Amino acid sequence: MQKLSSSTNYKIKEILKLKEKHVRLERQQFLVEGQHLVLEALKKGIVLTILGTELALQHNVVQKHLHTVDEVYEISANVAQKLSDVVTSQHIFAVCSMKEQKIDYEHNILLLDQLQDPGNLGTLIRSAASFDFKTIIGSANAVSFYNDKVLRATQGNFFQVNLINEYLIKTINDLKQAGYVILGTNLHQNSKKLEKVRFNDKDKYALIIGNEAKGISFELLDMIDININVEMDDQVESLNAAIAGSIIMHKIYVDNA
Amino acid sequence: MQKLSSSTNYKIKEILKLKEKHVRLERQQFLVEGQHLVLEALKKGIVLTILGTELALQHNVVQKHLHTVDEVYEISANVAQKLSDVVTSQHIFAVCSMKEQKIDYEHNILLLDQLQDPGNLGTLIRSAASFDFKTIIGSANAVSFYNDKVLRATQGNFFQVNLINEYLIKTINDLKQAGYVILGTNLHQNSKKLEKVRFNDKDKYALIIGNEAKGISFELLDMIDININVEMDDQVESLNAAIAGSIIMHKIYVDNA
Repeated sequence: MQKLSSSTNYKIKEILKLKEKHVRLERQQFLVEGQHLVLEALKKGIVLTILGTELALQHNVVQKHLHTVDEVYEISANVAQKLSDVVTSQHIFAVCSMKEQKIDYEHNILLLDQLQDPGNLGTLIRSAASFDFKTIIGSANAVSFYNDKVLRATQGNFFQVNLINEYLIKTINDLKQAGYVILGTNLHQNSKKLEKVRFNDKDKYALIIGNEAKGISFELLDMIDININVEMDDQVESLNAAIAGSIIMHKIYVDNA
Repeated sequence: MQKLSSSTNYKIKEILKLKEKHVRLERQQFLVEGQHLVLEALKKGIVLTILGTELALQHNVVQKHLHTVDEVYEISANVAQKLSDVVTSQHIFAVCSMKEQKIDYEHNILLLDQLQDPGNLGTLIRSAASFDFKTIIGSANAVSFYNDKVLRATQGNFFQVNLINEYLIKTINDLKQAGYVILGTNLHQNSKKLEKVRFNDKDKYALIIGNEAKGISFELLDMIDININVEMDDQVESLNAAIAGSIIMHKIYVDNA
């Protein structure tokens, strides 16, 4: 196994470039960090390269998968710190390929319209996995799924959901054709209180979450079939996008249980 | 009005120290930033000092309150950038006094047991304000309410909730005496599905949210009256703390509406 102990090494420098969005898109690769995410990536069979300190590579759960990976590098703690985005790194990393992901038409779907905050996105991925939404489709201008803050906020649930970027008008038209009921929150029109909406397991639902500041784009508002109002005190302007989305997904999950 | 154009000015250096938790606690002061939060602080009557660029101080909503403040300084854009924690600063700041806050015994209460993530705390403050929880009590070792990331995540709803730090065992005993029903999520014991719990407006509730990694402290678990299970797919280990807390608060809000 090759050892890489300098962060000026060509291989390391190339991997560090994956911290930039345009490089990730060009190469169709992204970097994950930590035992949990590396293991999930290994199980998905999308790992191209593993990098870890001697100790980290000996970790049981990771070690038994190492033979499935073409490139494994032992790195120094110094290099690990350079690659890491966190204070207490577990010193294990995987370069993964962005496999093309497909919509799961058997389950409910989350649509993210220009969502900007990586923490919100990561939390929504975790909630979607928790409430049986198996696909998330982000508009082209939403925050990148492969941002390190997003990955961390998913708390290891990143690989449980299909993640796709697509134009939402086209997507919503396709989903309507496929029989999906489109849900959204539009504060400017008549809406139905969440408590009063009965979701059922005969219908499939696609829920649109809008941008944190501007809400759902004008051109998507007319495509909403059920305009939902999450009950709240009107002294507060709005709920956090991840909170509102998760409350609605939870209600759908409970109604269909 | 005195103009401060250097960030090495004594006054500015003293204010910059408020970014450190121990200084905030020593002085019982904290710094807020942005038109919205500064205005809310002015309305609360807790502002000791206002600092803003010439343009920011002329802003209508702020200007009409300036006469209520003893110290107003005009600062240069350079100093504003030094004080700011955000990329696009609105160049207006207020030094506020931490007025002692009291429990509102007429409303439901949120208890934060060693919550660590400032984003979660800010989001929970925003949700508490939205769902009529008027008091939040954090354990002594929880993340500081006055952290700049917390303040930002509240999206201007920081001043709508009473914020208190207290020992939770003592607090919970007091709340039980005052007739509060203590709610929590303990994954290791028998629990009741959230959907099956009927909250009513005759009871008052205090909801404990545990630490992101460890959950609710061992010594508090026995004090829980209703152990709530937020329904979710068991392939995911847990929900984000702010999400779980907000889903429960929303249900209580809806049941009591």
